[in-house]
Amino acid sequence: MHTTSSAPTAADSGTVRAAGAKKTRVAVAGATGFTGQELLRLLSRHPSVTITQATSSGATAARRLPALTRLWNGTITPLDADSLARDADVVFLALPDTAAAKLAPQLVDAGVRTIDLSGAFRLRNAAARARWYPETHQLPSQLVYGLTEHHRQSLRTAKLVANPGCYPTAALLTLLPLQKAGLIAPQSDVIVDAKSGVSGAGKTPTERTHFSEVHGSLSAYGVFAHRHGAEIDEGLGQTVTFTPHLLPIDRGILETIYVRVPAGTTEGTLGDVFVAAYSGEPFVRLVGTELPEIKHVAHTNFCDIGWRVDPSGRVILISVIDNLLKGASGQAVQNMNVMLGEPETAGLL
Amino acid sequence: MHTTSSAPTAADSGTVRAAGAKKTRVAVAGATGFTGQELLRLLSRHPSVTITQATSSGATAARRLPALTRLWNGTITPLDADSLARDADVVFLALPDTAAAKLAPQLVDAGVRTIDLSGAFRLRNAAARARWYPETHQLPSQLVYGLTEHHRQSLRTAKLVANPGCYPTAALLTLLPLQKAGLIAPQSDVIVDAKSGVSGAGKTPTERTHFSEVHGSLSAYGVFAHRHGAEIDEGLGQTVTFTPHLLPIDRGILETIYVRVPAGTTEGTLGDVFVAAYSGEPFVRLVGTELPEIKHVAHTNFCDIGWRVDPSGRVILISVIDNLLKGASGQAVQNMNVMLGEPETAGLL
Amino acid sequence: MHTTSSAPTAADSGTVRAAGAKKTRVAVAGATGFTGQELLRLLSRHPSVTITQATSSGATAARRLPALTRLWNGTITPLDADSLARDADVVFLALPDTAAAKLAPQLVDAGVRTIDLSGAFRLRNAAARARWYPETHQLPSQLVYGLTEHHRQSLRTAKLVANPGCYPTAALLTLLPLQKAGLIAPQSDVIVDAKSGVSGAGKTPTERTHFSEVHGSLSAYGVFAHRHGAEIDEGLGQTVTFTPHLLPIDRGILETIYVRVPAGTTEGTLGDVFVAAYSGEPFVRLVGTELPEIKHVAHTNFCDIGWRVDPSGRVILISVIDNLLKGASGQAVQNMNVMLGEPETAGLL
Amino acid sequence: MHTTSSAPTAADSGTVRAAGAKKTRVAVAGATGFTGQELLRLLSRHPSVTITQATSSGATAARRLPALTRLWNGTITPLDADSLARDADVVFLALPDTAAAKLAPQLVDAGVRTIDLSGAFRLRNAAARARWYPETHQLPSQLVYGLTEHHRQSLRTAKLVANPGCYPTAALLTLLPLQKAGLIAPQSDVIVDAKSGVSGAGKTPTERTHFSEVHGSLSAYGVFAHRHGAEIDEGLGQTVTFTPHLLPIDRGILETIYVRVPAGTTEGTLGDVFVAAYSGEPFVRLVGTELPEIKHVAHTNFCDIGWRVDPSGRVILISVIDNLLKGASGQAVQNMNVMLGEPETAGLL
Repeated sequence: MHTTSSAPTAADSGTVRAAGAKKTRVAVAGATGFTGQELLRLLSRHPSVTITQATSSGATAARRLPALTRLWNGTITPLDADSLARDADVVFLALPDTAAAKLAPQLVDAGVRTIDLSGAFRLRNAAARARWYPETHQLPSQLVYGLTEHHRQSLRTAKLVANPGCYPTAALLTLLPLQKAGLIAPQSDVIVDAKSGVSGAGKTPTERTHFSEVHGSLSAYGVFAHRHGAEIDEGLGQTVTFTPHLLPIDRGILETIYVRVPAGTTEGTLGDVFVAAYSGEPFVRLVGTELPEIKHVAHTNFCDIGWRVDPSGRVILISVIDNLLKGASGQAVQNMNVMLGEPETAGLL
Repeated sequence: MHTTSSAPTAADSGTVRAAGAKKTRVAVAGATGFTGQELLRLLSRHPSVTITQATSSGATAARRLPALTRLWNGTITPLDADSLARDADVVFLALPDTAAAKLAPQLVDAGVRTIDLSGAFRLRNAAARARWYPETHQLPSQLVYGLTEHHRQSLRTAKLVANPGCYPTAALLTLLPLQKAGLIAPQSDVIVDAKSGVSGAGKTPTERTHFSEVHGSLSAYGVFAHRHGAEIDEGLGQTVTFTPHLLPIDRGILETIYVRVPAGTTEGTLGDVFVAAYSGEPFVRLVGTELPEIKHVAHTNFCDIGWRVDPSGRVILISVIDNLLKGASGQAVQNMNVMLGEPETAGLL
Repeated sequence: MHTTSSAPTAADSGTVRAAGAKKTRVAVAGATGFTGQELLRLLSRHPSVTITQATSSGATAARRLPALTRLWNGTITPLDADSLARDADVVFLALPDTAAAKLAPQLVDAGVRTIDLSGAFRLRNAAARARWYPETHQLPSQLVYGLTEHHRQSLRTAKLVANPGCYPTAALLTLLPLQKAGLIAPQSDVIVDAKSGVSGAGKTPTERTHFSEVHGSLSAYGVFAHRHGAEIDEGLGQTVTFTPHLLPIDRGILETIYVRVPAGTTEGTLGDVFVAAYSGEPFVRLVGTELPEIKHVAHTNFCDIGWRVDPSGRVILISVIDNLLKGASGQAVQNMNVMLGEPETAGLL
Repeated sequence: MHTTSSAPTAADSGTVRAAGAKKTRVAVAGATGFTGQELLRLLSRHPSVTITQATSSGATAARRLPALTRLWNGTITPLDADSLARDADVVFLALPDTAAAKLAPQLVDAGVRTIDLSGAFRLRNAAARARWYPETHQLPSQLVYGLTEHHRQSLRTAKLVANPGCYPTAALLTLLPLQKAGLIAPQSDVIVDAKSGVSGAGKTPTERTHFSEVHGSLSAYGVFAHRHGAEIDEGLGQTVTFTPHLLPIDRGILETIYVRVPAGTTEGTLGDVFVAAYSGEPFVRLVGTELPEIKHVAHTNFCDIGWRVDPSGRVILISVIDNLLKGASGQAVQNMNVMLGEPETAGLL
């Protein structure tokens, strides 16, 4: 099933801007990691922003990024909070949790709208936050969890956006509509068997990310102990069983989700719920019973969702995203578009 | 946890054979597919058998297999049932289901011990068989389901061995000891989230096996409708939820298995059960809470099993095999060793 | 060495179009193959064209392409030459050679500007054409070989563009400036050792494109007998030794090119020649002695070129492109931009 | 062309050993790297040796290797030269160059036959050695370069074997017979375009071996400056142009070799030369004009060689090996077999 919808297509996203419209000044802190470079790539193509800074805490002198030649002519400079606050209207933090936990409040206090791609501000539950992000001592006001499709209204005025984790993005986009419609049976286990490409592990070389460890193999990790599990639990308000696996691919996540639904629920029931939730959404595509594949969303900001139901009430849902785009930098730019009142697809199709 | 055990190691497998001992004559029907070639590779190294025939239904004249040069100097010949029965004491069938359903009874009637790697004789339940293997009308007597570790005794005298499917091998080796020990909680869902390399789909080129479809991607298939699901259900005597996925690797299967255990069950409880079941087994390795990876079993006949238990009684088990070896040709040779009274590891370490 | 240049960047490519400017009507014949789908993806984002038809000779009824949902809402329809000529100002042919050889002259006669991605019209030498493209009996006038950077002027008025092959694009962009500058020593062998991703072999499943054949392997093919070798020979006016290999990746080509240069030629000499040739080009990036990698150009229309020279006059050049973009659909759109007088980067950054 | 030959096959390699024959004591220094583990795997299966020590300089206490469970039950212990010399008749050094340069002479002095898999003793030319292996100050007597097929006679009594590099093994096995037969034309360039899997780069995680850098990509490295180029030059007595590339596979090397032959040389001429050189060799397989592929030799000790000749005297040769076996540990065991007078295929088929 491929649902038709009123969602805009690429052809509609050509923003008509008055000649001479002033561009929003944006900066990327932590620009040399995977998500930082992806942000530069997206922002350099964006019709209504201009990149004023791209920083790296490791940078001691300005330097260029060869892969971005002809796309962006700027240089990477050392990180300086004051300079960031002066030069940018919106700052993206693609930093480690600890650095983001410290820098974000400074920027917010200086009046800079901040989109944090780290985990530092994703958990509101204090106990969970103390376990997974102990460096985050308190949460600024006007903090919004940036799962765009579900928090669009509050994003418009947000000062600080906690950009969701990659695994939670795919899981929550799939489970929230079912839960809100009362379609997760009481007592049902909710199991998220997740598989991710290696870029999700970041750019630092480790034994785990060595090509020879990953190629031709598959392994589970973080069983019963992954911070993204806590984020899914909080987003859903319910404990899920979450098992991440490391796939021998560079980018993309596929989650196979198991729940039980009340008697009489059919594939059509789920279809109705998903269409009601997402038919107007530009970045959620409903694939229905044909089931989605990672290759259809790699290098895009789409989340594709499919589902199958059997007569005994067992449901299998499949959700796929590109972990660096809808799971990180793409959703961050989507959130920025909402914050700025720009067309939500600007720079993303 | 890496359990120590009394299992034999490679050093013990050097079979001491009396000089001039007569070798068993073996044949492979369907020798050009993935499992057929793997059988030739294993049997050519085996100290106590000699390959008398390797046939292909597509062969119109004798031809060689370049990849096996220096390992096996024979030629592939057209398939002829009478000739097979005359020339071989043991025949391996690496044929499509329909061809195997027809040929196996003929060979058994002619007194040839037959190991069938197709699915034709795996299901005893008539209704399930009618759905998945309609060409198999009846089951010969002295038919044994060849999950070696669990049916060793009856294999010794079997006339026809139904070699298990790759997915069921990994699932049943993991679940049967738990079930027999009463460790699967009543009302527990049993979910097998399985991921397999592409060689499991066979050698025929299809859109599904095109490199560009698989590389950099992951997809689920056969949801709620896969014949291996029926085989696991029958082997376990209980309905499981089985979801296979196609991994971008050539060989190997990893299964993530979710069950609930009775209150008070710990990782130690499971360890005791698995050690009791497998400590003397040469081809089952208990990895415990460290969890196994495909790369440790690829190109081997091992099944590695790991497990984690949380205080609320949720259990995650990981089982890995090489689908062409323990999941097909390796287990077939292991079964042959049992049938012939040879050391079980002969030709396999 | 990363050369600075006056080339435009993404920020400059935002075309300023008068409100209500009429869009050019474009069509894609053969829209379901790899290059056809890539064309739809590019054209659906292009600010100044509208896709009026996307045809497939296999289509019996209109159907959608799931991967393009939200990007392009059209349907694939059966191929009809008259209808194409009526509905489109520019037609892209992503068809087999034989079909293109027949259709292109019809479209040109009907006044439709045609960009042919097949090989049918790439060779002017009649003997070579008779060997490699026997179905192409004559060449229309106003036919231009579409290596954009080297034939831009004649492309502006071309009626039929023979879009270059993927291997020749990477080879000729690298070798032509050296040859024109007299830097290929007389008597020097010219060797192009080329490695390509599997998408270059097309979408039809064959033994050659089966995942299990390609994964974890590498093989040469078409040695001394590949039509792209003839195309490179003709483009360079000199016989090259051309060896293609099939890489276990989906998209991308790397060519390692060996020539000898006259005594006294240095890396600086080559740098000067390449900068003179390409410093103003938006899609050629000069990497110099750091040498380029496929990953920097995958999913882009760039050709990255690097070089090393040793004191004895041996030169190694490395050239990388994405075979589906700069090697096919991207260069086709670039050529369309030149033909239409649009900014050359429109839809491509 | 698949040449028939008198080479032994797997069936012939079952060594007949008198009951109670004493096993040779062997040790592996540096047992936790890729080649070290491969040595343990091979030696644990070998019928006539027993592993008495496996050391790691990083080991502070005895530990096990999970992947080898059931194959080898020993433990990894800290490296101690005296203990090695006391416990082993043959020691394999799978160590960094510097460590091997120091340890090998000590072992040789203590009367232990030593097979060094590092590069420390591969170059006899003092200037080249000073550039690439400055830590190697002098060469012990009875040092033999262990390209088995070409130095078998001197290996029988060698005290120290310099096991060849992976790239030189594939290159020299292919080029030496041609050179000895006078088939490399005077003034011909000799170009070795080499492609290797990532395991050749060793187990230490670096940016270069990060999965996301390698997957879906290809890059050249060490152009005009690789120590294996010096080793090929010395082995051939002639300067070659050597360009290694990093392939997105784990194991395997393919080399595409370009030379010019004297007028009148045909594919048959080359075939005669290769058959004369290798028809009796168990580990060299002549594929002729069909050209070899990495997948046919991965996980084996074979070197497959193919060739094509065109009428103008250009020759393209393709040589493939598994870099960890014939390119390292396999050839090391083959050399040990020669040194000990064991069947050369023992433990290797």
